[in-house]
This record gives sequence, structure tokens and C-alpha cells, in this order.
Amino acid sequence: MEENLYETDFNIWYHQIVEEAGLCDKRYSIKGMNVWLPYGWRLMKNIDSIIREEMESTGHDEVSFPLMISRTDFAKEAEHIKGFDAQVYWVTHGGLNELDVPMLLRPTSETAMYPLFALWIRSHTDLPLKIYQIVNTFRYETKMTRAFIRVREIHFFESHTAHTSYEDAEEHIMTNLGIAHRYCTELALPYILIKRPDWDKFAGADYTVGLDTFLPSGKSLQLASIHQYRDNFSRAYDIKYEDENGEHQYVHQTTYGMSERSLGAVIGVHGDVRGLKIPPSVAPIQVVIVPIIQKKTKELVETECATLVEELEAAGYRVKLDDRDLRPGNKYYHWEFRGVPLRIEIGPRDIEAGHVILSRRDKDTDDPDAKATVKRTDLVETIAITLTDIQDSLLSSAKEFLDASMRTFKTIEKASEAVDEDVDFMVRTGWCGADYCGHDMEDTLDMTMLGTVMNTDNEPAEEMNCASCGSPGHVVLLSKTY
Amino acid sequence: MEENLYETDFNIWYHQIVEEAGLCDKRYSIKGMNVWLPYGWRLMKNIDSIIREEMESTGHDEVSFPLMISRTDFAKEAEHIKGFDAQVYWVTHGGLNELDVPMLLRPTSETAMYPLFALWIRSHTDLPLKIYQIVNTFRYETKMTRAFIRVREIHFFESHTAHTSYEDAEEHIMTNLGIAHRYCTELALPYILIKRPDWDKFAGADYTVGLDTFLPSGKSLQLASIHQYRDNFSRAYDIKYEDENGEHQYVHQTTYGMSERSLGAVIGVHGDVRGLKIPPSVAPIQVVIVPIIQKKTKELVETECATLVEELEAAGYRVKLDDRDLRPGNKYYHWEFRGVPLRIEIGPRDIEAGHVILSRRDKDTDDPDAKATVKRTDLVETIAITLTDIQDSLLSSAKEFLDASMRTFKTIEKASEAVDEDVDFMVRTGWCGADYCGHDMEDTLDMTMLGTVMNTDNEPAEEMNCASCGSPGHVVLLSKTY
Repeated sequence: MEENLYETDFNIWYHQIVEEAGLCDKRYSIKGMNVWLPYGWRLMKNIDSIIREEMESTGHDEVSFPLMISRTDFAKEAEHIKGFDAQVYWVTHGGLNELDVPMLLRPTSETAMYPLFALWIRSHTDLPLKIYQIVNTFRYETKMTRAFIRVREIHFFESHTAHTSYEDAEEHIMTNLGIAHRYCTELALPYILIKRPDWDKFAGADYTVGLDTFLPSGKSLQLASIHQYRDNFSRAYDIKYEDENGEHQYVHQTTYGMSERSLGAVIGVHGDVRGLKIPPSVAPIQVVIVPIIQKKTKELVETECATLVEELEAAGYRVKLDDRDLRPGNKYYHWEFRGVPLRIEIGPRDIEAGHVILSRRDKDTDDPDAKATVKRTDLVETIAITLTDIQDSLLSSAKEFLDASMRTFKTIEKASEAVDEDVDFMVRTGWCGADYCGHDMEDTLDMTMLGTVMNTDNEPAEEMNCASCGSPGHVVLLSKTY
Repeated sequence: MEENLYETDFNIWYHQIVEEAGLCDKRYSIKGMNVWLPYGWRLMKNIDSIIREEMESTGHDEVSFPLMISRTDFAKEAEHIKGFDAQVYWVTHGGLNELDVPMLLRPTSETAMYPLFALWIRSHTDLPLKIYQIVNTFRYETKMTRAFIRVREIHFFESHTAHTSYEDAEEHIMTNLGIAHRYCTELALPYILIKRPDWDKFAGADYTVGLDTFLPSGKSLQLASIHQYRDNFSRAYDIKYEDENGEHQYVHQTTYGMSERSLGAVIGVHGDVRGLKIPPSVAPIQVVIVPIIQKKTKELVETECATLVEELEAAGYRVKLDDRDLRPGNKYYHWEFRGVPLRIEIGPRDIEAGHVILSRRDKDTDDPDAKATVKRTDLVETIAITLTDIQDSLLSSAKEFLDASMRTFKTIEKASEAVDEDVDFMVRTGWCGADYCGHDMEDTLDMTMLGTVMNTDNEPAEEMNCASCGSPGHVVLLSKTY
């Protein structure tokens, strides 16, 4: 990889890395539909495991709904269909026959699930209903596609819940914020919680909060979105329950969605000129062992390596022994590029001395802490400590970068002076909440209003006068976006 | 469930059980596309784990290819498109635009994968290439659909391999036969290995072997199919490698496919009048604990149950404590119906006596071995032994049933006398291999020629003269099929 491409042209860097690190192959004949390669797929499945564990521990059941949705079911919620109509793929023929009712490929599953919710939910004892699925979804993107970030077949997570009241649904949104926070922490991804402006909320939602992060490309990226639907969908799909007094009430619903964008963020936020840096928590390979082979000590080193693999696997690590017939330097490059957090180098002299060399991917090569000589007897414990440290330091570096990516302006004029085509920060300012002022800011800065910055309690984080009209308002962020 | 429905009307029994046991919901608005419910989905994922482990231990990499295939890629292998053209769903529109090239939803992934194989494979050192995926596939079924057995969205496993020679590919087919055997054993499903007649081989294959089992409905069911492609696809998709002499050669390919039919077979082969019987190896719940709660000893029993759950989970079992406010008898019925292999009943007197009641789902209720009193201190060990015994006895009962489901006939006339509309067996006879004789048997018996019975070495199992023309031939099976 060309020197410093990460800094000079992030987009080319990103484009190269996803293929060269073995994450996906973009040469599939349909644009925006990529082939998940073994290494990328293992990484994605490790990411999926995090959300799966979170879902299980918060009482959600995993289900799997059909991919196709009939036009009839899709059209029931007016706002929803308006929001998605231009973005869906239509299946019109089965074999040589034209279908009576055309079907679409789910862009998300509200309209597939809610007719069933209406059958499943009878009484308040059926509530809350909490389900999730991890499936492929589809959007007919007309913008330029980008691996993991803007694709036409999306590896998608969605949870859907139904509650007796708006308050119960609100409480569940707090649960979702906790889940999303732990998820992002496992991926070492810092984020800002932002309530979307009304014109940008999910089609059919009462309100939407997003978790946004920022990439070195100068654009923000939505990692997750959480939606309060109130009874908008339950009225359209007739999802009612009998309350304790025998009255029939509409349920209140929430959803929580994420996608392979999480992987895009891991690549973009943590990577550097030497390639990927994968957080230990999700790395397909956490420790790679590179033997230093010389002819006469070959057997000694091979035996020691086999022991090492066994020992580390027994300790619960994902380990790879690279015993290919290549020079160690080539192997270092190969695994650094693929973001393996830790490398063990071991040769005959190390064995004799009773130690190994432990090398961290997260540090620059000229950092004295990048390499350490570790006593063989302390190895398992040192690996545990180092992996935790790598995980933490990835998050804190990323947090530093995110914090530095926001610049505060009191007026739209001041912001406008600082923002040009190559802007590499988000504009932090105040907004009164009026559509007119919000659109004014968007137009003047040629940026997207991400919305109101929220605290972890799902309330606006800070007051600030509107940069457009000067009235009282709250802190918002505007940014270039993916 | 109505008494003896399993024996009197298997199809109604099957239809009821898949919904009432919480496996899937068939009320989705598109026929043949069902909703996987939490219990059914957990069961299917446990089944998937078996094949995933087998794939990993035999050096296959997991990938994930796009769902959609362009008409252009699909049309390259002439036999293949002829075989599938009438069975695929066509995507013709994206949003409001008609697509330039229509795309189809994969019925299987040869035509998605092989253009990439042509890019991935350069040299003999790239071979063998062994990949697999577990994905949703689609067939536009016009026949009556049936949950898990004949559906339009299929939960599908497929492995694809490429080799330097026909012999290497043949050797891999032996590996696949071993994998398939271990897979079926884990599901306690006996099978017969059968080489399909040429007219029924996979579209584009050189030959196809299937693993067939038999359901109490009187129909055989294909559990898996393994295909030798020779160089049929590699010539169409130009998949070549450079051999050790620098010559360019076409690769030889194999595939191996299975689907949610495995689950259909588990339901049909093992079930009885009381519902499902799930093999312990894949049961979402292996042991259910039903406390016998009385007011004054409630706390004692609850504490003991909590300890039990902890102990059994620590021992690695999938355990469920049913602490609902229902009568024990209702709970027994509930979990028997759902096929949980073992039930623990525990009340205050059991605690006092230092034992529990252990009840096996696989035995009839009037079998003296169905219930045992087990010393509390022996419990974990007894559960281990009993689960193994249940697993084995499910397989041996099923094997007995399968063996009894074959009747041997020397001539087609004799077979014809025994076969009527309600035939509940497979016809075992001889076939010379000529199309004419094979079709003659099919027409006369109104049954499908499953093909030549094979040994585990993938060679015909036994010689037998043709039931139609009397010439030398091999043992074949004919059956009603799903």
C-alpha cells in the first residue's frame, strides 16, 4: 500500500483495504452487491455475536421473517411507503409467469412483521413482545456504492418491540441505548447520540435517535438508529391488546437497527497507513504466531509453536500459526495489514532464553512500546493484559479523534467562513428546532443537519441559541455524511 | 392433539405440529414463505452448527455471496438454466425504474460463484478451493407447499469445491459422504445413499448422489445431495489453473447441498402422537425442570431448582426452568409436545429424599423405563448417560422403521400387484440402467425412480437383474417422494 494513503486519500485507502485485507470482493457483476470473503465474514459474524448476546441477555427472541413482502402489506402505513417506495427492488415474475401481486425485497421488516404481530398479540400478558433478526435487506441505491457503507444488499440487524404504553416503549429505548453503548464499546467505536430532525426521521416513526461516528474522510457515519413508533404502525396494522380492564388498546412500538456499516466504521476509524486495526473483541485472529525458522532448529521451533497454539487456544484465544514458507517480514506485513492485534515472534534463541517477542498492532512501529520481550511463563497473562490494553487504547484514540472533529460556532456566518469543500470536521452549533432555520443551516453550509446532541438519558445535552435566528435552542451537529 | 393423528393422518399431524410446537408460523401473507419462530429458529441454528463444525474441520471457508444473480451470469451453463428457468423469481424493477438486465433470486449459487472462481483460481497452488455458505435461496414452487419440506424461501446450505482433477474431485466426494454421514447421525436420521438416474441429476452435473430417508407418510425425502460437476461448469465459466508444467487446465468441481428439509425429517421421522422428539444433540432445550410447588415449601423448591439450573448449565447442558404458574401436568404436556428429551420433576418430598424424577421423552408413557428416580448426587452423570442413550435409541428406532419400509420385488409385475395408492413402502428392485426400463417402472408403479443404491464407497451396493427387461443390473429404489 502506497505510503500515507490513509492520510492523503482516505477513499482510495478504504477502497483498497477492503479487498486487499480479504474482507470482500467487489468484482461481483452487480454493482453494490459484494462477496463476503472468509476473513471479512468471520469478522462480521464476530460483530453479530456481540449484538446477539446483548439481545439474549435483554430478553429478545431471535426470529427469521421472509425476505419478500407483498405490495399489499407494504402499502398499509402511508408515511412508510412514501419513504421507501423509490428504494425497493420489485419481484414481478415467478418462472415464466407474471405474479398477481408484485412483491418487494425487504428494505427493513416492519411491514413483514406487523401483520403477524396483530395475530400474536392478544392480551397485556403477551407484552412486551421483543424480537430481533439478522438478515439480508435490500435498497435500490442510486448513489455511488461503497463496501459496507452504502450497498444494495445489506447485512442487517433489526429488533422490534411492542409495549402496552408510550412510557414502556420509552423505557425500552433506554434499554436499547444501553445495548448500543456496550456494542460500540466492544467495537472501540466512540459515537455521539443525536436526535434526528423531523424531516430525517425513519419513515413512520414518532422520533429517531442515531448513533453517529466520524471518519477521517471528513464524513459522519450512522452506526445505529433507534426509533420510537408510538402507535403509528399499530393503528395501520391493527395491533391491539386487551388491557387489565378488558379494553382494547393499540400497542406502542420501537425498533433498533444496525448493519454492516459497523464494520465499515471499524475499518475507517481504527485503520492506518499499515492497514486494518481490528479490536481484539471481534478480531477473527487475535494472536498470530510467526516462527523464525532456521534449518537446524526447525523441529525445535515447530514443536514449541505447536505447544504455544495449544496453550493459547486452551486459554480461549483465537490463534493462528503462520507456518507458510515465506520470510518473517512478509508475514509481519501480511498480518499487520489484516489488523491482527498481537503477533508473537519466536525463534531458537528465544526458546533458549525462555521468552518470546510480543508485537502490538495498535502502536506505531517506532513506538518503544510496540514490541516487548515477554517471559514464556508470563505469556498467557501478558496476552490477556495486552489485549485489554489494545482494546482500551483503540477506543481512547478514536475518542480523541472524534472530539477533535467537532468545531463550535455561534453563528451560521462564522461557521460558513470556516467550512469549505474539503471540510474535515463537524459543525457544532445551536438550533431552535424550526424547520426553516435547520434547512437554512443545511443550505448555507452544504451539510446535513444530524440533529440535536443528546445525553445518555435521551434528553438534549446542552442549550445554545439558534445559529440562524438567535432564539433559544439546543446544541446540534451538522456534517457531511455517508 | 387428536389421539393417534400421527398414525391416521400424518400430513395433518405434521401441519399441526410445526405451528403448535412453535417452529414456524404459516400465516404469512405469501404462500410457501413462513416465519421462523424462536424455538424453531434455535433448533435450525443448532442443526446449522453441526454442518458448520464439519465444514471447518474439513478445511472449508465460510463465505456469503449476493442473493441476486444477473440474467447474463445465470445463462452461461446451458443445462443449468434449462433446469432452473421455470423455477426462479425475477427482479425486474428497482424503485420506479425498470432494470437494464433483469436479476433473479438464487435458487442455488453456482452461477453467482463461478465467475469469481475464475478470478480467484490462477495456479494449482490455489487448489483445492473449498467454500460454503448458509443462506436463503428461492424457488418459485407451483406444487403445494409444506413447512420445511417444500417452501419458496429456503434456508440452504451449499458447499462448492474446485480441484485439479476428476480424481481429486472424486476423493472430495468421499469426504462429503463422510460429513453427510456424521451430520445425519447427529440428527439420528438413517438414510440410504442413492445415485440418481441421469434424468434426475442436478442441472449441469456429471452425476448426483442423494441421501434419502423415509417418512411415515409413505414418501421418501431427500436430506442431502452431492454432485460431481466434472468440468461442465468450469468450461462454461472459464475456470482454469496453471498446472506444474505451466499448462492451463479446467478445474473439476463438486457441490454438496442441504436445507431446512433436515428439520422436516427430524419432525417426521422421530415424532409421535405426543408431538416432537428432538435429538439431544440439537435440542434447543435438552432438560426442562418442572418444580412441584406447594405453598409452604415454595421457597425450598425454588432454591433447589435455581441450584439445579446452575449445576446443569455448568455441566454444559441447555436447560430450562419452567416456573410458570401452571399445573405440572400442563407443563409436562407442553414440553413433551415440543420434544424436549429430558424432564426433571422435583418437589419437596424429592428434595427430602435426596432424589429427582427423570423422565425421558423418547419412551412411551407406559414404558417402565420412561421414568426413573435418580439420586441427586448422581444426577449430572445420569443425564449425560441418558441423553446419549436417547440419541442412540432415536437412531436405532428410526433405522428399524427405514429398513421395514423397503420391500423387494424381482419383477415389475409383482411390485405392481403390491403397490396401490396408499403404498407405505419403497420398492426395492433391480434395474439395468436403461432409460426405457427406468421410465417403464416409474410409469407402471406411479413412483419415482430414486436411483441406484450405493455403498459408503460410492459404488453400487448390490447386483440384481432388471425388473423390466431381465438384463443384469443393480439394486434400485422407487418411491413416492416429496
